[in-house]
Amino acid sequence: MRIGELARRTGVPVPTIKYYTREGLLPPGERTSPNQVRYAESHVRRLKLIRAMLEVGGLSIAAAREVIGEVDSPRRTVHGMLGVAQSAVTKAAVERGTEEDWERAEHEVRELVRRHGWAAKPENPGWKALVQIVVTYRDLQRDDLLALLDTYADAAGKLAIAELGALADVPSTDGKVEGVVLGTVLGDAAMSALRRIAQEDVSGRVQKRPHSA
Amino acid sequence: MRIGELARRTGVPVPTIKYYTREGLLPPGERTSPNQVRYAESHVRRLKLIRAMLEVGGLSIAAAREVIGEVDSPRRTVHGMLGVAQSAVTKAAVERGTEEDWERAEHEVRELVRRHGWAAKPENPGWKALVQIVVTYRDLQRDDLLALLDTYADAAGKLAIAELGALADVPSTDGKVEGVVLGTVLGDAAMSALRRIAQEDVSGRVQKRPHSA
Repeated sequence: MRIGELARRTGVPVPTIKYYTREGLLPPGERTSPNQVRYAESHVRRLKLIRAMLEVGGLSIAAAREVIGEVDSPRRTVHGMLGVAQSAVTKAAVERGTEEDWERAEHEVRELVRRHGWAAKPENPGWKALVQIVVTYRDLQRDDLLALLDTYADAAGKLAIAELGALADVPSTDGKVEGVVLGTVLGDAAMSALRRIAQEDVSGRVQKRPHSA
Repeated sequence: MRIGELARRTGVPVPTIKYYTREGLLPPGERTSPNQVRYAESHVRRLKLIRAMLEVGGLSIAAAREVIGEVDSPRRTVHGMLGVAQSAVTKAAVERGTEEDWERAEHEVRELVRRHGWAAKPENPGWKALVQIVVTYRDLQRDDLLALLDTYADAAGKLAIAELGALADVPSTDGKVEGVVLGTVLGDAAMSALRRIAQEDVSGRVQKRPHSA
């Protein structure tokens, strides 16, 4: 198909398609004559994936480029793809608090990971983010919120098994790799959205009880 | 205490403290003489809360100001605080896809909410975000990822009960209100971080099995 049809099929304007190609997100089409370029079905799908990453997932062009680089890598694996996608969606943690606070929080995170029997490394992009959260909760003496982390971890463990299980049922490697990208980029957003809806429900019920604030 | 001690105690530089005061995030100290202002313990705590929102939670100054406005409101309730905090952390969803896609996805979200027995309104900031995610998964024909939403919803329901339950045990309204802010602003980040660590674990185990990608 020509670029006009690609634009119509995906809802992405022609100049934006050209921009994504220049930025290395979309592979160029096949030049069939000096002023004609042909695009394939794979371009439709790739454009939808790019749009999901940038517009729904809120990734930067640079982060999306890194993810796409791994998607297109001949050496890609599902496990490697997960690491790249996770790094792309995780904002760098700001280190605040004293060295002592950090060491204590790092120890707590290590203990939590051990308690849940997880084989994971401190290089995991979630690790430092979690340490920063523990430092913050400690700083504000919110032991009640710290105690919730084990409940979150139980839920996270169950979700990871369900997610990777769903992925195992996808027949093609292309489908698996795309599933990792979407699951990582949009899975967090889906979980946050559902948490807000569930919280509204529970909070509304609490509010209706007599003598509650 | 004087501003210098407030800065030392919280690790927030004096010009930043003044900036937060000008922006309406931090109440001004009490002027005790023409060139002396006195700050209280409540300023220490408020500064830590502001820092958690801006630096760990990634909120904008405008979003943090809205949250603080509700924290300081004489008419605040825990339920109302939750709504304001949720809106502050939820990025506006970009509407992509045809009107028909949206209607279908809205119907699916309504059905999901009904299935889980939740009393929640489409005005909930998570609702539109979830519709956008359903539109995206449908557009890419990822029924496998759509099917996971019920698993996420089960987890979200359990977490909401645990979160609101922990809050019920906090004796003061101040503590409850601060707990809602922190739980909303940092709770999502904590859950995302733990999901990454759990996913690394499960993905690593799958990878070690023979014949897996």
